[in-house]
Amino acid sequence: MTPTTPRVTAVDTYDIRFPTSRELDGSDAMNPDPDYSAAYVVLRTDAADGHEGHGFTFTIGRGNDVQVAAIRALRHHVIGRPLDELCADPGTLNRDLIGDSQLRWLGPEKGVMHMAVGAVVNAVWDLAAKRAAKPLWRLLADAEPEWLVSQVDFRYIADALTPQEALDLLRAGREGSAARTDTLLERGYPGYTTSPGWLGYSDEKLTRLARQAVADGFTQIKLKVGADLDDDIRRCRTARAVIGPGIRMAVDANQRWNVDEAVEWTRALAEFDPYWVEEPTSPDDVLGHAAIRRAVGPVKVATGEHVQNRIVFKQLLQAGAIDVLQIDAARVGGVNENLAILLLAAKFGVPVCPHAGGVGLCELVQHLSMFDYVALSGTTKDRVIEYVDHLHDHFLDPVVMRRGHYAAPTAPGFSATMRPASIAEFTYPDGEFWVKDRAGQPATHQPNGAAA
Amino acid sequence: MTPTTPRVTAVDTYDIRFPTSRELDGSDAMNPDPDYSAAYVVLRTDAADGHEGHGFTFTIGRGNDVQVAAIRALRHHVIGRPLDELCADPGTLNRDLIGDSQLRWLGPEKGVMHMAVGAVVNAVWDLAAKRAAKPLWRLLADAEPEWLVSQVDFRYIADALTPQEALDLLRAGREGSAARTDTLLERGYPGYTTSPGWLGYSDEKLTRLARQAVADGFTQIKLKVGADLDDDIRRCRTARAVIGPGIRMAVDANQRWNVDEAVEWTRALAEFDPYWVEEPTSPDDVLGHAAIRRAVGPVKVATGEHVQNRIVFKQLLQAGAIDVLQIDAARVGGVNENLAILLLAAKFGVPVCPHAGGVGLCELVQHLSMFDYVALSGTTKDRVIEYVDHLHDHFLDPVVMRRGHYAAPTAPGFSATMRPASIAEFTYPDGEFWVKDRAGQPATHQPNGAAA
Repeated sequence: MTPTTPRVTAVDTYDIRFPTSRELDGSDAMNPDPDYSAAYVVLRTDAADGHEGHGFTFTIGRGNDVQVAAIRALRHHVIGRPLDELCADPGTLNRDLIGDSQLRWLGPEKGVMHMAVGAVVNAVWDLAAKRAAKPLWRLLADAEPEWLVSQVDFRYIADALTPQEALDLLRAGREGSAARTDTLLERGYPGYTTSPGWLGYSDEKLTRLARQAVADGFTQIKLKVGADLDDDIRRCRTARAVIGPGIRMAVDANQRWNVDEAVEWTRALAEFDPYWVEEPTSPDDVLGHAAIRRAVGPVKVATGEHVQNRIVFKQLLQAGAIDVLQIDAARVGGVNENLAILLLAAKFGVPVCPHAGGVGLCELVQHLSMFDYVALSGTTKDRVIEYVDHLHDHFLDPVVMRRGHYAAPTAPGFSATMRPASIAEFTYPDGEFWVKDRAGQPATHQPNGAAA
Repeated sequence: MTPTTPRVTAVDTYDIRFPTSRELDGSDAMNPDPDYSAAYVVLRTDAADGHEGHGFTFTIGRGNDVQVAAIRALRHHVIGRPLDELCADPGTLNRDLIGDSQLRWLGPEKGVMHMAVGAVVNAVWDLAAKRAAKPLWRLLADAEPEWLVSQVDFRYIADALTPQEALDLLRAGREGSAARTDTLLERGYPGYTTSPGWLGYSDEKLTRLARQAVADGFTQIKLKVGADLDDDIRRCRTARAVIGPGIRMAVDANQRWNVDEAVEWTRALAEFDPYWVEEPTSPDDVLGHAAIRRAVGPVKVATGEHVQNRIVFKQLLQAGAIDVLQIDAARVGGVNENLAILLLAAKFGVPVCPHAGGVGLCELVQHLSMFDYVALSGTTKDRVIEYVDHLHDHFLDPVVMRRGHYAAPTAPGFSATMRPASIAEFTYPDGEFWVKDRAGQPATHQPNGAAA
């Protein structure tokens, strides 16, 4: 018998939705009632090791089916690919997906189709890390700089970052990486928490959760703002009184404002010493962010969770429009594009503080920050990963927080694998939760995974 | 019996695909094999007049199903709406669609979901114009400036254009509109043709079609470039020799280049006096376009067919990044957002030369330019609408070209209504054409609508 080359045999998709809107978890000025959802993809193979590649796009409910359809439109690029080639060079698949000349019309490189690319590409990296028996952050940190550069698509960013510059950054980043790996494994990566600050929470709940955040070891919290200025002033005053002057407090407007409004509103909150103002306006408005930043200092300007791709991040950096760059693991075209964005941030010397929360975003993005610390930027100074205490129990390898820090994952993969029981129960509209819900019967489990 | 209020009763969708890739029609440096397609939507009502609202997103093949799914995700916003309210104020529906807090996550205002919004909003304008018994350009040109301003969403653009400035522009634009209407009805609106310049065409075909274009009265043609510089030099030389120095020749790179490449390549073609270079790089790269424009003058820089929304157009104007603004009728959020973009262009004094071609894009966008001429910019100087001789016969009210000019439509509506027989035949994958195609049988009709 000739040994066969193991290949991808199936790209299965799932429309998974959690009814989070019923608890007002995740409510902000633009998203009053999110139902945290995942357009989920599983790459199956005929390899003897039995590994699968898991990935997803995070959405907040309606339209998760559209996102699933977009992932399905990419399947023909993946099915049949030899695993050895695929995992040795996810960048080639990344370019093939982005370069599909017909699908490209639907972006290019933005919105539904691009997030679908990200889900598939991330699933490949999950598979590659499992096959390498390493957590993804370690696979990336151990990789040769030349290979990492080969994984980056420099199209449309070469005017700001050349391959040679990327290589130099990665070579410099390796110096001292062994010691930083030890530090990371010992202490973890600093996080900050948004759990106290959702707009739908009462002042009492805000107070209680802010106090808890400090007790838990967090050195930064975040409050949602932008719906009503008087409310925001009261909530910022309340939070600042609870946490004291030594804890950083960010505010997040979720794109609620025009440029002028962003400036006025941020200035009105300045007395409470906000550390950054996040998403003050449209994520598409590079020049608007630059104008806001010029006007609101020393308050820093942060954005990125809705920034569509490396090209817009490039311009935010070129224009001096942001103090803090917020990557999202599942918004852009996956690990490959986030490598480009981390390199751009390193080139421009802007700290990266990832967006997380939702479903599984904490699980994914921690790997990117940990790689960045160990093998690129080499520091956690002024860098924190967002943390929200939502829906972690649905994952096989959930994030672990210790004294306000993300513990470094040790299980192989991208921490993207959802529990089969969770997938079955919350698949929309035919999972057990949704069937019972429509029938008016009590749920077996709460959306957070605990027994009801 | 109480008279009932007529309402939208259904939002039907169709996945329509034409096998244009087999003829190399529409081939360019980034899109070698487009199958021109429409994610098509029909609003049905219970009104006695029997009018329907037709709209669509243009795509180039794969992914048209994803686009259809996105339109379907919007249906609940439309079904049941009273027609009188809907047609008197499409802007409210526009805001509701863009503001759907869960669907917004999939953009915001970009890509698949935003084009779906555009298809639905355009279908409403088609219905409104049919009910008003006017072609859309005339409905818009006859409207009160105050009402037009109410149709514009100023969110994220108010720093560049205030409602008062928009009102002033529209009031000034009305002066002399009656005379311009007469001129328009008599002469039509100038067009330019891309038909000679597709990348897949032989030099002989380029020569023949360029000569024909001049004979047909066009004063501008366009060539696709960007795949191979030597080929481009030869093709530009050939075309310039055929058309002579008095005819404008634009070149279109379809996003093929990085910033530096765009500058070098454009300079290498400068001896052939290109009028504009179109889509020299990513449509997302405002600062890149500005850098290119600074370097390639007197060649003008044009872009817009892939620009996702008014926010990016705003920045292209603020940054002085373009000489020519190219709206597309079906890329952004429909007529309402294109009103915003036309107003921005008027404010900044930049001429609008729409993108068209594909399926039905000529039919739609002519209405916007004609409105702009009659009631906003008041001029056709340096303004031309792209024309491509593709697929017009599938429409009930196809564009009519006379001496290189678009004749002003007189039939009520947005010229968006496709022939029922064409919808039936080219619906994918179950229309007659595709069924026969899979079975290896000859088609009844050519993709261009002619008998085979």
